[in-house]
Amino acid sequence: MDTEVAPAVEAVAADIAEMEIRGAATIADAAADALATQATASDAETAEQFRAEMHAAAGVLYDTRPTAVSLPNALRFVFQSMEGTTVESLRQSAVDAVEQFRDQLDRAQDDLGEIGANRLRDGDTVMTHCHSTDALACIEAALDQGKELSAVVKETRPRNQGHITAEQLREWDVPVTLIVDSAARRYLDEVDHVLVGADAVAADGSVVNKIGTSGLAVSARERGVPIMTAAQTIKLHPGTMTGHTVEIEMRDEAEIIGPAERDEIGDIAVENPAFDVTPPRYMDAIVTERGQFPPESIVTLMRELFGETSARPWEDPV
Amino acid sequence: MDTEVAPAVEAVAADIAEMEIRGAATIADAAADALATQATASDAETAEQFRAEMHAAAGVLYDTRPTAVSLPNALRFVFQSMEGTTVESLRQSAVDAVEQFRDQLDRAQDDLGEIGANRLRDGDTVMTHCHSTDALACIEAALDQGKELSAVVKETRPRNQGHITAEQLREWDVPVTLIVDSAARRYLDEVDHVLVGADAVAADGSVVNKIGTSGLAVSARERGVPIMTAAQTIKLHPGTMTGHTVEIEMRDEAEIIGPAERDEIGDIAVENPAFDVTPPRYMDAIVTERGQFPPESIVTLMRELFGETSARPWEDPV
Amino acid sequence: MDTEVAPAVEAVAADIAEMEIRGAATIADAAADALATQATASDAETAEQFRAEMHAAAGVLYDTRPTAVSLPNALRFVFQSMEGTTVESLRQSAVDAVEQFRDQLDRAQDDLGEIGANRLRDGDTVMTHCHSTDALACIEAALDQGKELSAVVKETRPRNQGHITAEQLREWDVPVTLIVDSAARRYLDEVDHVLVGADAVAADGSVVNKIGTSGLAVSARERGVPIMTAAQTIKLHPGTMTGHTVEIEMRDEAEIIGPAERDEIGDIAVENPAFDVTPPRYMDAIVTERGQFPPESIVTLMRELFGETSARPWEDPV
Amino acid sequence: MDTEVAPAVEAVAADIAEMEIRGAATIADAAADALATQATASDAETAEQFRAEMHAAAGVLYDTRPTAVSLPNALRFVFQSMEGTTVESLRQSAVDAVEQFRDQLDRAQDDLGEIGANRLRDGDTVMTHCHSTDALACIEAALDQGKELSAVVKETRPRNQGHITAEQLREWDVPVTLIVDSAARRYLDEVDHVLVGADAVAADGSVVNKIGTSGLAVSARERGVPIMTAAQTIKLHPGTMTGHTVEIEMRDEAEIIGPAERDEIGDIAVENPAFDVTPPRYMDAIVTERGQFPPESIVTLMRELFGETSARPWEDPV
Amino acid sequence: MDTEVAPAVEAVAADIAEMEIRGAATIADAAADALATQATASDAETAEQFRAEMHAAAGVLYDTRPTAVSLPNALRFVFQSMEGTTVESLRQSAVDAVEQFRDQLDRAQDDLGEIGANRLRDGDTVMTHCHSTDALACIEAALDQGKELSAVVKETRPRNQGHITAEQLREWDVPVTLIVDSAARRYLDEVDHVLVGADAVAADGSVVNKIGTSGLAVSARERGVPIMTAAQTIKLHPGTMTGHTVEIEMRDEAEIIGPAERDEIGDIAVENPAFDVTPPRYMDAIVTERGQFPPESIVTLMRELFGETSARPWEDPV
Amino acid sequence: MDTEVAPAVEAVAADIAEMEIRGAATIADAAADALATQATASDAETAEQFRAEMHAAAGVLYDTRPTAVSLPNALRFVFQSMEGTTVESLRQSAVDAVEQFRDQLDRAQDDLGEIGANRLRDGDTVMTHCHSTDALACIEAALDQGKELSAVVKETRPRNQGHITAEQLREWDVPVTLIVDSAARRYLDEVDHVLVGADAVAADGSVVNKIGTSGLAVSARERGVPIMTAAQTIKLHPGTMTGHTVEIEMRDEAEIIGPAERDEIGDIAVENPAFDVTPPRYMDAIVTERGQFPPESIVTLMRELFGETSARPWEDPV
Repeated sequence: MDTEVAPAVEAVAADIAEMEIRGAATIADAAADALATQATASDAETAEQFRAEMHAAAGVLYDTRPTAVSLPNALRFVFQSMEGTTVESLRQSAVDAVEQFRDQLDRAQDDLGEIGANRLRDGDTVMTHCHSTDALACIEAALDQGKELSAVVKETRPRNQGHITAEQLREWDVPVTLIVDSAARRYLDEVDHVLVGADAVAADGSVVNKIGTSGLAVSARERGVPIMTAAQTIKLHPGTMTGHTVEIEMRDEAEIIGPAERDEIGDIAVENPAFDVTPPRYMDAIVTERGQFPPESIVTLMRELFGETSARPWEDPV
Repeated sequence: MDTEVAPAVEAVAADIAEMEIRGAATIADAAADALATQATASDAETAEQFRAEMHAAAGVLYDTRPTAVSLPNALRFVFQSMEGTTVESLRQSAVDAVEQFRDQLDRAQDDLGEIGANRLRDGDTVMTHCHSTDALACIEAALDQGKELSAVVKETRPRNQGHITAEQLREWDVPVTLIVDSAARRYLDEVDHVLVGADAVAADGSVVNKIGTSGLAVSARERGVPIMTAAQTIKLHPGTMTGHTVEIEMRDEAEIIGPAERDEIGDIAVENPAFDVTPPRYMDAIVTERGQFPPESIVTLMRELFGETSARPWEDPV
Repeated sequence: MDTEVAPAVEAVAADIAEMEIRGAATIADAAADALATQATASDAETAEQFRAEMHAAAGVLYDTRPTAVSLPNALRFVFQSMEGTTVESLRQSAVDAVEQFRDQLDRAQDDLGEIGANRLRDGDTVMTHCHSTDALACIEAALDQGKELSAVVKETRPRNQGHITAEQLREWDVPVTLIVDSAARRYLDEVDHVLVGADAVAADGSVVNKIGTSGLAVSARERGVPIMTAAQTIKLHPGTMTGHTVEIEMRDEAEIIGPAERDEIGDIAVENPAFDVTPPRYMDAIVTERGQFPPESIVTLMRELFGETSARPWEDPV
Repeated sequence: MDTEVAPAVEAVAADIAEMEIRGAATIADAAADALATQATASDAETAEQFRAEMHAAAGVLYDTRPTAVSLPNALRFVFQSMEGTTVESLRQSAVDAVEQFRDQLDRAQDDLGEIGANRLRDGDTVMTHCHSTDALACIEAALDQGKELSAVVKETRPRNQGHITAEQLREWDVPVTLIVDSAARRYLDEVDHVLVGADAVAADGSVVNKIGTSGLAVSARERGVPIMTAAQTIKLHPGTMTGHTVEIEMRDEAEIIGPAERDEIGDIAVENPAFDVTPPRYMDAIVTERGQFPPESIVTLMRELFGETSARPWEDPV
Repeated sequence: MDTEVAPAVEAVAADIAEMEIRGAATIADAAADALATQATASDAETAEQFRAEMHAAAGVLYDTRPTAVSLPNALRFVFQSMEGTTVESLRQSAVDAVEQFRDQLDRAQDDLGEIGANRLRDGDTVMTHCHSTDALACIEAALDQGKELSAVVKETRPRNQGHITAEQLREWDVPVTLIVDSAARRYLDEVDHVLVGADAVAADGSVVNKIGTSGLAVSARERGVPIMTAAQTIKLHPGTMTGHTVEIEMRDEAEIIGPAERDEIGDIAVENPAFDVTPPRYMDAIVTERGQFPPESIVTLMRELFGETSARPWEDPV
Repeated sequence: MDTEVAPAVEAVAADIAEMEIRGAATIADAAADALATQATASDAETAEQFRAEMHAAAGVLYDTRPTAVSLPNALRFVFQSMEGTTVESLRQSAVDAVEQFRDQLDRAQDDLGEIGANRLRDGDTVMTHCHSTDALACIEAALDQGKELSAVVKETRPRNQGHITAEQLREWDVPVTLIVDSAARRYLDEVDHVLVGADAVAADGSVVNKIGTSGLAVSARERGVPIMTAAQTIKLHPGTMTGHTVEIEMRDEAEIIGPAERDEIGDIAVENPAFDVTPPRYMDAIVTERGQFPPESIVTLMRELFGETSARPWEDPV
């Protein structure tokens, strides 16, 4: 069947593919919006044709970044709510679903921040890894609650996203100490909480996050320091409910070693995995906008949100 | 008393202080040699005067780098063997002791390498941290034994000494994979041994080594990968037998953050400890030229080598 | 708005505040009953006014002991079931809800006891900490099942509630050995189960209970002895679902040190926290009247019972 | 009341009792089918009589193997769906429920296999214990996905079910290494996953499986090797939700020691428990046909499936 | 043989038996002194007779408190040094040995204090258990070194020796917080070191100390807080080198429960072990006057001090 | 040089090679005796020739079973004591050394048994693995001390040496429960001590013993049950002091799987390592005839016994 996908959808897809649109929440927002555009733009004459077009649009969007977990979550949300037997009722329910999804997305980080902030006490020192707006939202909310916090910020090689975190914290007047990643265990002594974000959270409670998180979590447990993940529910990875593992991106070696150093060292391999996997037993809590959860029970929330659907729910038989 | 210290000794002391002479073994060698120079050059007329001059020379040398553990160990060795009641017998015993010390030093790394190599099996993959000639001696000896090894080399921020290690291993045709420090736990899965050096080893079995070692050791234990320290006995820290802790050098922030980044981030603290402390329960073995030891029993070797002397043994009453 | 709170409600509130009414279940029962009283006594003419009065009554009751978790749980239960558009329907649903709540409360400890008893085997020795009627209900039910049990009872400084536990067990002809709290690890060797109650259970699976519980749990895990918490669902703390931590009461120093000893010792601080927090990874099961749960999944039950409501649900917009 | 149980039901019950019908799924299938037979054969004239007959049939079936967890689960499923006020509507709903149950059973192992397979990576070496068709379904599905696997197979004394596993794997061209049970920790070094089945899964997340599983799990955790249980939901034990422990069968000593050896050794006790209990903290995931779950959250699935019913739900008041 | 024991020796023995003389060092001092008295008072005519008298005196002293480890250590020291073939030479060597022993004893606590103090840093908070002059000597020496310390003092039921510790620390102007024993894990968060004494140290590295030490050590390890034992070498228990276990005194129940409470509770057992045993893996260091040792290597020092002698060395064949 | 080895030595060597002479102590005894025979039989005319003959004899003996650690230990003992400048003095010192070695060997097991027995308490239940006369000597000595013991005996596949242990214990009237190896963790609950022997003990404190020991030790630690190794000092492996690992024998697959089963299963690999390696951190004590040692300090005893010699000390330059 030759289904029509709106040009505006194709444009959004291209922007996502080329990383013009990036960041989990931004991608989810754009993808949902594109579905609304498709629904509005459609001149399908039958419900069947309308559905086919929507599915095609979803497929185009999905294929841009199949490993970005927030994208299929956005699509899934819309298709779970889209219902009706006429073009019009389908269109309306789709547009409503998109609006609802985007509303929730708007509020999610604030809600999450409130919840995470409740775990922090006045006077605490927080250690961070990488740069996560979800994690920072917890700190910001705690500051808004009038708590005083200090931070130990890991620089987070190879891309030093810790610098962005440090700069943000400094703007909020949080005293910051910057350290190399290797110094983490040494400074855990002086830290009351470790606070990280997530790229994805799996049904078995594992947290997929910037490389170095799992070693940090193991040391935090060994030192008796609590550690929490701040992650909106768009980070929950439905595919993992059926055992799929989260694919770990291998990034360019140029992030690690410059061409001059390369020449000097000679012919060696350089490996640069973007993320690692922290087992649930080393994480104290996952904080979402829907509340905090022990990692081992996050699957319960995933079942509430996603049911037991397939990875590409728009392809499920109606 | 106005005791005379030979100008050549002063020169060596200056070179050590200015780090013209550096590296644990090189410092120890130079310091011992300087004592021999002092002994030879002395025109003391009484045994008492000779001793006083030798003590003064030791004091000058010691004060250059009081935290470099190999330096007092060299001095201690000479004074433990210097004996006699005449200038001549004292001089001869001092010169002999220096010769013996330097002979031992010459052989120590090779002997250590042999012992460490025996722990490695053909086909093993070894993970390294920082750059340690003692650790590399184990790998070289294993290669000489005909074993094939691969290596996973941590870059070791902030000074990237892992690059030196990688280059050396590549010259020996050992396949090398370079990773960022944060990727260590992720790669421990593929590793059979972790091999590190030491800046100092304490009487309670703790290993003081390049920042990041303790976190690596905790992860290695968690992943079931054995970890060993390669350290000549000149790294054993006698002061720790009486409870003294090893002073940890804080290095310049410029190693971590450049001036431009600094300006961008703004007013934050940067801390750059050179070393950290790995508790004995996370280390499987300490390999010295005198054999391998569980960390918990290294104190036995220290008592054999040093007795129960004070920190500045040349000042002990005769 | 000047809302009318029934005098009988004020009286109950006063009794709770002055600890005339105490114990988690007793407080919950009294608070629910007070709401029924308010509903019955109300001469509100509009549904809106009726609701306002009920909210005001709830507020008065809530403010007496804001840290007693059973109290807001009772209020919450009633407000979740109160519905209607007329005064009469609201009144009836409120009264029904109170009745249902009190019925459940009546049965809860027995049901919980049955479930906990099932975990105990004939011939087991049980270690207790403090005095908990929920924990004792498990032992009583096990005895009713014909099982023979022995007990090792920790005295539980500073208030020696272990004596109450010991006395109760002795009345049931359970052989008791009383020990000081410090002897717990020494006696874990001879113990088959550790059984404690809870003052509150948090959404992250932590158990807030009498000071000393967390150390006991750590030792029990180290010695391989299973440990369970007996806690009715009125102990589940809804606020923790949104990250709030449970406030720990600091009690009077006189419980620890008498005036004479005080004078003798001189000017020191004495701290007397009533509770501590046991992380979920050291607890094997939380036994409620709704079944037993691994601590990590208690949040699921909390979501069933409480939804994702605010801390003062009666103030939520209708 | 003298209720009539169909002779065909009695026959199935006898076959189960005598282990002509065995294996968790086969028993469940036969028991459900027998209920359909009873429903069809019934000439009850009132709904009440029909129910009574069905209950009697369930009782006869249940009493054959009260410890086989799949059997009451089959019965429970049917009774949860049987509803109506007339004989005909009850009969129809019962027959429909049986059909639905058997359909699900048919698909369950395949679905479970798919999910478990997703956890295995191409090139992995898997260690197995005992013989479990659920576990083997995961391997088969992974092979179907084109993954290459190797296996280390524990022989699993005393009945050497590892031989059956080894034979099956060899037929699928999976390279197999057979070892004695005691060699497990030694070979965990070379293993990427441990994969076991279950005889029952408890509400506290414990896995009841062939003796030796718990020691294997403890060693796997110590060596950093992930371990999963493959278990269809008919293995979930509803009674454990109310704290009941799973009864462990003690089998004949002849499985362990022959009469000749017995004579030679003389008068000693021989104990042969069939199963042991692995605490949830040593298991990474429980894979069912309804998805994978951290052991600590399996209770959530149990509540979805079973509610909070009694052990013999057909006896509950209507 | 009817050997003569000096009346003064009998008097000392009586004082020890009746606990007029108590405390490990005081007992050791008195016992050694009594041997000197015996040696001086003896009018033996042959070396053989002299030895017999000394052995008899040792026996009398030893039998007063066979579980007080310092007592046989004092005796052992003297007999190891007593040598000669004439009465006079034996007498002189015995008297000299006593003098040397008492000299060492005089200096031991100061030396130990210096060593332990070196492990403490300026600004540290130290948690104590019970009352130990060896432990306090470490704090006193640290204060003398100009370090500022704070203390968290466990009251140490049942005899509240923590009060003595608190009073001593207050006199030294150390800020003290007194807590019940059960609050230890709760306060470990705020503590940098745990510091305890010992009643005996065993050859396998176990520390026998006031009941509660082992649970405290387990919690300290779990919280990542270092813990050390301060114990003079007279606390090392030679008998444990040959596997003997240290006998644990059971003290009177009246220390735990008064007669009135007793009557109220009724017929229960009360057990009051004075000590427990902390395994070496939970202790970071044992600090003696001869240096600090990992617990696992304390046996080395014991072999240096005691050789491989029997428990009553004076009875060994000459 | 054509050195003469006595025919009787060749005969003993042949018996050892063909396992006519077996068992660590028996081999050591025979090898030492053979050296005495060689010394007595020699008609060397110069000391140099005598030494050469002795070295040749040692070489012949050593090469029979290079992995049997007791054999080189016997040879080493003799050569460490053989000294002199004449044939006669060398001969005499060699013969004396052999006699002394054999005397020690005679007493060693009894002495070891005494020491190990001291660790067992009256009423203890002991779990054993494999068959070790050293371990049994501890039990026998405990029985001689009047203690009552029970035993849980692991059958120890594949060769069921547990049956021999069970039979021996039964003869001593020790109540025995025989279990399969996989049941070990299940029965640790009821056990007070685990007691194993050793094939070799390494300088890093590892215990090389019958396959299954390391998994048992890990489970014992997890369950809080102490575990000790009984091993005479002839089991200490000097080569490990210089890092050599102990070679693990792979035995015939026929011990695991019979030809019929083999045919049925088809083409699979069977691996049958005789031993595994238990890390020191999972072993509580190593009991030798020279006392008990924490595994981490056994290297101290090895240095006392062996010095820092080469693996074939008779080849060292004189």
